Amino acid sequence: MTEKLTPEARAEILAELAGWSLIEGRDAIEKSFKFKNFSQAWGFMSRVALAAEALNHHPEWSNVYNRVHIVLTTHDCDGLSERDVKLARKIEIYAA
Amino acid sequence: MTEKLTPEARAEILAELAGWSLIEGRDAIEKSFKFKNFSQAWGFMSRVALAAEALNHHPEWSNVYNRVHIVLTTHDCDGLSERDVKLARKIEIYAA
Repeated sequence: MTEKLTPEARAEILAELAGWSLIEGRDAIEKSFKFKNFSQAWGFMSRVALAAEALNHHPEWSNVYNRVHIVLTTHDCDGLSERDVKLARKIEIYAA
Repeated sequence: MTEKLTPEARAEILAELAGWSLIEGRDAIEKSFKFKNFSQAWGFMSRVALAAEALNHHPEWSNVYNRVHIVLTTHDCDGLSERDVKLARKIEIYAA
């Protein structure tokens, strides 16, 4: 679960997760989200927070009013793992 | 309410708000908070979010697990205003 993704898995994941991209200089992925206002951004973040706590895998994220920026990586393996994929998939559902 | 703080008001505020400091190159204040875990950090952030929405004044903030970093400034006046002071005071209560 916390093993680093293979290059093949990584390529598949990035093809699946629209809008997510690798961060230069880090084995991590990021995506920015824009909502109508703070209330909608916070609603989204609250759902992500519950999922993160349930998965015991938490994002690095920031928020400015209606914008949310999320970085995912796994500290246990110092890079991308299945955990990031799981959380990213949930995030995509909540952002839809 | 959205007028820039005078230099005198600014000095008073910074003396009152322990741990808050001016950001170099921006008319804004910042403070970092550390909690026991994500659950406690998120509880704190949720209270700040409700206060921010009620004041119609929102922070720029980021979270990594048990850490929360908050920046306050007022875009309407492109600098620090009474609104930042109000929100900072609430934040201090919730962090206590």
